[in-house]
Amino acid sequence: MTSTALMTDMYELTMVRAALHTGQAFHRTLFELFPRRLPSGRSYGVVGGTGRALEAIENFRFDDEQIDYLVGAGVADDMLAEYLASYRFTGNVTGYPEGELFFSGSPLLQVEGSFAEAVLLETLMLSIYNHDSAIASAASRMTMAAEGRPIQEFGARRTHEEAAVAAARAAWIAGFSGTSDLEAGRRWGLPVSGTAAHAFTMLYDTEEDAFRAQLEWLGADTTLLVDTYDIDAAIHKAVELTGGKLGGVRIDSGDLSTEVKHVRRLLDSLGARQTKIIVTNDLDEYQIAALRGAPVDGFGVGTSLVTGSGHPTCGFVYKMVARTLSDDPNAPMADVAKASTNKKTLGGRKFASRALDDQGVAQAEVIGINAAPRVGSNDRMLLTELVSDGTIVGAEPLQAARDRHEAARAELPLDAHRISNAEPAIPTIILDEQGHDLENVYQAGPAPQNI
Amino acid sequence: MTSTALMTDMYELTMVRAALHTGQAFHRTLFELFPRRLPSGRSYGVVGGTGRALEAIENFRFDDEQIDYLVGAGVADDMLAEYLASYRFTGNVTGYPEGELFFSGSPLLQVEGSFAEAVLLETLMLSIYNHDSAIASAASRMTMAAEGRPIQEFGARRTHEEAAVAAARAAWIAGFSGTSDLEAGRRWGLPVSGTAAHAFTMLYDTEEDAFRAQLEWLGADTTLLVDTYDIDAAIHKAVELTGGKLGGVRIDSGDLSTEVKHVRRLLDSLGARQTKIIVTNDLDEYQIAALRGAPVDGFGVGTSLVTGSGHPTCGFVYKMVARTLSDDPNAPMADVAKASTNKKTLGGRKFASRALDDQGVAQAEVIGINAAPRVGSNDRMLLTELVSDGTIVGAEPLQAARDRHEAARAELPLDAHRISNAEPAIPTIILDEQGHDLENVYQAGPAPQNI
Repeated sequence: MTSTALMTDMYELTMVRAALHTGQAFHRTLFELFPRRLPSGRSYGVVGGTGRALEAIENFRFDDEQIDYLVGAGVADDMLAEYLASYRFTGNVTGYPEGELFFSGSPLLQVEGSFAEAVLLETLMLSIYNHDSAIASAASRMTMAAEGRPIQEFGARRTHEEAAVAAARAAWIAGFSGTSDLEAGRRWGLPVSGTAAHAFTMLYDTEEDAFRAQLEWLGADTTLLVDTYDIDAAIHKAVELTGGKLGGVRIDSGDLSTEVKHVRRLLDSLGARQTKIIVTNDLDEYQIAALRGAPVDGFGVGTSLVTGSGHPTCGFVYKMVARTLSDDPNAPMADVAKASTNKKTLGGRKFASRALDDQGVAQAEVIGINAAPRVGSNDRMLLTELVSDGTIVGAEPLQAARDRHEAARAELPLDAHRISNAEPAIPTIILDEQGHDLENVYQAGPAPQNI
Repeated sequence: MTSTALMTDMYELTMVRAALHTGQAFHRTLFELFPRRLPSGRSYGVVGGTGRALEAIENFRFDDEQIDYLVGAGVADDMLAEYLASYRFTGNVTGYPEGELFFSGSPLLQVEGSFAEAVLLETLMLSIYNHDSAIASAASRMTMAAEGRPIQEFGARRTHEEAAVAAARAAWIAGFSGTSDLEAGRRWGLPVSGTAAHAFTMLYDTEEDAFRAQLEWLGADTTLLVDTYDIDAAIHKAVELTGGKLGGVRIDSGDLSTEVKHVRRLLDSLGARQTKIIVTNDLDEYQIAALRGAPVDGFGVGTSLVTGSGHPTCGFVYKMVARTLSDDPNAPMADVAKASTNKKTLGGRKFASRALDDQGVAQAEVIGINAAPRVGSNDRMLLTELVSDGTIVGAEPLQAARDRHEAARAELPLDAHRISNAEPAIPTIILDEQGHDLENVYQAGPAPQNI
């Protein structure tokens, strides 16, 4: 992996430039990355990006070419250039593990280190978490709506080519079965799938020629795309050519709920009872839910997945919440917060737990400021160690995140399964150091943006 | 640049795998990339991605590690692996140049080559064009609404880190003044900007200490962020510290139209008449338009830019429209088209011109099938040569695309300046070989998705 260090807003560097001269660059600070609230209509969010963020921190190094650019562009002076040349993140990071759910105010990532080393990570951490969590959150709604039927991720063509690779990864964490994106398959070990497009059918003089070629060279268990010309004729031919052993048919157009019932009856009447029906026409969680009663064996989802199904970014922010008053690394940290209209932040280190009742059903996201909230016997602490003194300690296989997502989602109350105009599935309760409830701190105000 | 070849849907490779065995892989084909229609409410679109697409075609090579992966994953058999190892695109590409406007059905890219070499580019071309054109189209609405006042691109933190670099590039083509993204500055030579965030103010014991540090080490022409605590107090202090010579103030919260009038009056009353006011709070083209009468000197736009302001992808498709009936490269090509419900395509090579009246005002997008449409003396032909026999011939400096965008947008009728619920600024007229008008071919039907 190449250096990630320049995927950073210029102001992170100019702040460090000034603070190096005054000495504040080395004061110890704590930054937190969190959502002020869930997107409207969503009952929960899914943490995506943790694994990618840890790799990005490891590769956050400024090479000579990058530093030459920064000096030439007037961004860095000599003192900053020297600092950047030896930059390594040496601090500590804690956070929600990947695949975990989040709610308003959940402290998803906590970066503790000198001001310089912590602030330089701001843009990149936000890019990764805002993108990957938006995709994971949308994907989770889709797998929930699919009720166990497999969903393939087919969205590469609808988003930036590198975003597509990350999107496939996030979708897999949230329960997708695989992806069409080969680089995602290679890079992350995801199952890949794909057979043929309409162009393949049109490449041959007849649909039958195309089917014969695909069946001969990809096998009878392939999935044939049957809607290039006439669906019924295509299905008759496909079943005939395979003696009823055809693996699957894909339908990519028309009114799917009507179409699939008709196709299922037709396949059955021709004896192709094992042939699966895969649908792929502009699906999202609402369409998938609407196909609950329909004989669909699998879904392919593209656009709506990679665009976060209406919420392409999460609106996470990265705020300094505490700092020392000197560059003595052992000095105690003081809470800090800003007071801007509608963009207040809560100072102090957050602790987080998910309160569960006796049946293991989630009741609340409990966030304590500067003190771990009292927890019941069944509650789960949510923060885990990710980086310790600059060493990555939180890396894990993707399967762990996938399993965690499934388990955490299963804890939600039934209301969380509502996909239209949903309310947050559980409330966020914020307790100060004395355990007093700070009501609704993160619930009000307009959607956040801070640049 | 590393290989782009695996940023590809698996089915592109399985189609080639089967077609290699039957010989059809070497039949000459023509694919076209186009929008079926503009997104609802938009009066025009802006072509983004051409330059990146040409680089991606040049770097579309399969290395040993990639081929090993494909064989190991069961995607490639020996014949396909051998083909991929020597893959180079040797065909021809024509298309709209970058920065040009587009409308329903505009043939943005035409890829002619063997089926194998042309179909393998499908996913990557769509990824690049769908993303970059979505951003360029949104950016153009914002620069139009800003009426000449500069807009900085500050959205890196709201999108995937590599998408952010491409977004900064697309925004610059559509008239943005610069970006906060340092990698975009380095890679594309864009102007970069940025000074400080709220965290910098909070790093110091007093706001005055922070302002002093920033002014001393970044210069008096820096932009101070004045809304961390109390705006009025901050402005008094900032003017006092600079003797009225402060470069700018940035406001990132509150109701901007009220706020900036107040801040302007305050600055003027303190003698800081040259101090600029930059606003950055969750802006989009509607907000920018609403600030037309307000004393704002510059805008910073983040989320809405990188998410395409409600249309994060363009819905472009890539369809085979003609092919030869044999692998003789000189055989004539026959039109091909599919008949799927609501997803019909028009076979045949498209020609395109923008009809302009005597005053140079755009009247229509005229698309001829298999024949150049008759053009008036003032009309512009829109297709340009991009790749010739595998050699990139359409590369150009970014400035050329930026200039083209400005000139093309200036041709639009006044109606195009409507940003809410707009209709296409000009109609698309499609003419068959005899010059007959094929009415409304691309206007009807649901939003497209084809995977």
